[in-house]
Amino acid sequence: MNLHLLAQEALERCVQLARYSEEVGRLTRTFLSPPMQEVHRALTGWMLELGMTVRTDAVGNLIGHYPAQTPQAPLFLLGSHVDTVRDAGKYDGVLGVTLALALVKGLEGRRLPFALEVIAFSEEEGVRYGVPFLGSKAVAGRFEPSFLGLCDAEGRTVEEAIRAFGLRPDQIPQAAYNPASVKGFLEFHIEQGPVLEALGYPLGIVEAIVGQSRLEVAFRGQAGHAGTTPMHLRRDALAGAAEWMTLVEREAREEPGLVATVGMIKALPGAANVIPGEVQMSLDVRHPYDEVRSLAVANLITRAQQVAQRRGLELGYLTKYEQAAVPCHPGLNDLLAQAVEAQGYPVHRLVSGAGHDAMIMTSLCPSTMLFLRSPGGLSHHPDESVWPEDVEAALRVGLDFLERMAHSV
Amino acid sequence: MNLHLLAQEALERCVQLARYSEEVGRLTRTFLSPPMQEVHRALTGWMLELGMTVRTDAVGNLIGHYPAQTPQAPLFLLGSHVDTVRDAGKYDGVLGVTLALALVKGLEGRRLPFALEVIAFSEEEGVRYGVPFLGSKAVAGRFEPSFLGLCDAEGRTVEEAIRAFGLRPDQIPQAAYNPASVKGFLEFHIEQGPVLEALGYPLGIVEAIVGQSRLEVAFRGQAGHAGTTPMHLRRDALAGAAEWMTLVEREAREEPGLVATVGMIKALPGAANVIPGEVQMSLDVRHPYDEVRSLAVANLITRAQQVAQRRGLELGYLTKYEQAAVPCHPGLNDLLAQAVEAQGYPVHRLVSGAGHDAMIMTSLCPSTMLFLRSPGGLSHHPDESVWPEDVEAALRVGLDFLERMAHSV
Repeated sequence: MNLHLLAQEALERCVQLARYSEEVGRLTRTFLSPPMQEVHRALTGWMLELGMTVRTDAVGNLIGHYPAQTPQAPLFLLGSHVDTVRDAGKYDGVLGVTLALALVKGLEGRRLPFALEVIAFSEEEGVRYGVPFLGSKAVAGRFEPSFLGLCDAEGRTVEEAIRAFGLRPDQIPQAAYNPASVKGFLEFHIEQGPVLEALGYPLGIVEAIVGQSRLEVAFRGQAGHAGTTPMHLRRDALAGAAEWMTLVEREAREEPGLVATVGMIKALPGAANVIPGEVQMSLDVRHPYDEVRSLAVANLITRAQQVAQRRGLELGYLTKYEQAAVPCHPGLNDLLAQAVEAQGYPVHRLVSGAGHDAMIMTSLCPSTMLFLRSPGGLSHHPDESVWPEDVEAALRVGLDFLERMAHSV
Repeated sequence: MNLHLLAQEALERCVQLARYSEEVGRLTRTFLSPPMQEVHRALTGWMLELGMTVRTDAVGNLIGHYPAQTPQAPLFLLGSHVDTVRDAGKYDGVLGVTLALALVKGLEGRRLPFALEVIAFSEEEGVRYGVPFLGSKAVAGRFEPSFLGLCDAEGRTVEEAIRAFGLRPDQIPQAAYNPASVKGFLEFHIEQGPVLEALGYPLGIVEAIVGQSRLEVAFRGQAGHAGTTPMHLRRDALAGAAEWMTLVEREAREEPGLVATVGMIKALPGAANVIPGEVQMSLDVRHPYDEVRSLAVANLITRAQQVAQRRGLELGYLTKYEQAAVPCHPGLNDLLAQAVEAQGYPVHRLVSGAGHDAMIMTSLCPSTMLFLRSPGGLSHHPDESVWPEDVEAALRVGLDFLERMAHSV
């Protein structure tokens, strides 16, 4: 089997699937949108060619089944999501599905002591309903009934969207796998960050998905005339915010693995000749260890309090979102590391700074992820790309990994 | 003459004039708007009571003439503007006119060796046409013919507005005073800043009106995922901007008399989970000495370049506006200082951080300004206020000043 050509096919299939979009001229494909039917048609064709049986569960996950050596054998799951952000790149999610199919093709019909199921998750990005991971949550038995009542921008509920796609919302509970029957889950995904490229490595083993805190932080001072208020009589909310932002950056730099970001800022009233009386900011803090993250957030709030006190400002803050860190399965990680090493690639373990389906799947079964280097660290952008050599490397490692899994059963 | 009651009347007249507004429930009175007619009616009544003759020039400045001892005597001018910002306070500008009338009333019919003219300038704020000082520019002979073609938000030109008010645009040149006939100009105005209040002084002598530079400054880096991009691989435009803003504040604090303000900031793309790839800011820098201001601006740009270089950011900047500092007349300032001292108030000379009609009038004649303390430093706000005692103080100083002027002729 020519793995070079197989990798190329996996990439070409990403390009083909990128044509199925809700918008002309750019790729946007949200949960159960019409182009998702076209994706299902294409994937179904490719799965059938591989001798797989194909089904769609009640939240629109498309699943291809590749039988094991014996009928009662357990399952091993592969896959990723096929929904996208708005104006997306071609590889985020989709590559994890086409690579999984390439892996099955690479087996050349050989059966393993476990059946393989390739899942094309219907929803991971959270674009249409504001709630991410609808697909993997159903598979992991974590789809909450309240999700059915969520409305999209057109006022259409999840329940209506499921019916409109030809599926039955009442069958969502049956989408959940029986944990006893599942040996594990492996997700290929582009890194969506610059770490592997900076190191010059094609692949990375995801040891954990970071925990995340998101806050709103506000400084309130006194608006005033930019000409008539001397520096020493100012209570400039933006000057305070600037001082604090430099501390946020410094603290994050000093703590290994910590990232802290102010992505949104609004200064009020927002006129060139008026001293800002109020500044509102977002703060996003992530770290693989929850205690480190909690401590960092507490520390940054203390810093903000100190800045506010020294400057006669008021501080307001609100935690909007907290997500605990999720470790991947150490045993699967080690197996993946052995495969990476055996195939002659540098072994690099890293932490995912973004959420992925594997994060949800850890609650169902042992799960791990293999990251592929992202050129320029670029993702969620039409210029998102991936090196063909890296796809081939992932394929080699994946086949080696399945081999090792087969021997460990 | 009871100056306490006279001060009270000047204040009550401000309250009365505040009723003449374009908007219900708040004070907004722009250049030649209908409520300006009501202001003119009220002012005309008060001027006639004082034995003044009243005229309106071609840009709508209302002028009351109080004769001198002899017919061929020179003129001394008093006054301020009667237009307002949107949702204005009652005293900005208007108090300078009602105080000038109180001064005339305080003379109790006594003639001076110069005639007094009280000017209610029709335009200072620049709200309706984006160009400020239309009133004083006409008086100073600096009204540019091109101003007539400026359009307001409804597409109405200055020329049309002048005609609609019942005036003749072709007579604007006649609004200009002959410099040879004008001995000087004195403007009373609320400080619109917190300096006098912080010092506990009722009055301040304006030595100069600051020069001003306004720039747009932008840092451009690389947008990126807030979770997947480690701190050391970021080119965060907002982190760079924050560092620079702390330097802006520090440099301004270290240079006496300098104020530097970032009033507007915009971070792009502006999502909580995306590292800002670009930040756009305004920078406003003011100082009484043009060389100090120019040097400060150059220095702040150098600082921005250093920040950008160290962080791998691109810097962009553009000077949007430059206004040289305008000194008031040293002789008149000294005379005013003598009057302040003689009336038993602390002599404090300060610099105006905002533009005023007096700034334009300096090109016509020796000009000076007396600032009245602004409670809370508040202005351009409906809660703008002034202490009655301070108005009485200004009145005492004004009468003393006219006495000294009379003796110096």
